[in-house]
Amino acid sequence: MFDKVNIAEKLATFSDHWAPRIIARYNDHEVRLVKVDGEFIWHQHADTDELFLILSGTLDMEFRDRTVTLEPGELIVVPRGTEHRPAARNGEVRLLLIDPRDMSNTGDEATATRAVEI
Amino acid sequence: MFDKVNIAEKLATFSDHWAPRIIARYNDHEVRLVKVDGEFIWHQHADTDELFLILSGTLDMEFRDRTVTLEPGELIVVPRGTEHRPAARNGEVRLLLIDPRDMSNTGDEATATRAVEI
Repeated sequence: MFDKVNIAEKLATFSDHWAPRIIARYNDHEVRLVKVDGEFIWHQHADTDELFLILSGTLDMEFRDRTVTLEPGELIVVPRGTEHRPAARNGEVRLLLIDPRDMSNTGDEATATRAVEI
Repeated sequence: MFDKVNIAEKLATFSDHWAPRIIARYNDHEVRLVKVDGEFIWHQHADTDELFLILSGTLDMEFRDRTVTLEPGELIVVPRGTEHRPAARNGEVRLLLIDPRDMSNTGDEATATRAVEI
């Protein structure tokens, strides 16, 4: 992918929640945007870390032993094999994610929403 | 790395140009912040793509056949093996970069500034 990507323009193209969109690829990874609201499910990714950058809203990243509250301009890397549950408890949150190519959002094909390119 | 990272707080800890700081690691990559001003050198990375996300300022990403002008909230992935020259021609630009672990910023050890963790 050679052209620039405007994040705000990409965000304006969709409104559903928990359905990641791919906006760029580099090496074996995808840069994704997702809008979330409410609670996701507990899950983990056995083989990969996962990067979350908050674009708007307040996200609780829940771990089994603690919760990290993230504001816009903050990022967190969830280490591989670590159970986590993202939760947007105060309205919609917009996120930029980095995941390996073709990785499902739940670490489990049975419950996954596939990311699509926009 | 398990704790959250506040990008603005990290940016406030340094003021030199063209010297990337590592703020997070995931898989085999590093998330880096850098402040730039003026022109960099023409270079390429033979073995890796490189992601640039503009945080503030206006960056010209020059290629041999064209220039892509990037504003805050825009990103570009420079494909591996592609000569490029970042240039900040209208004052300081703050960037978030993603590079493979230990990659030098010029693709050439002789001219590189090593990224350091903050």
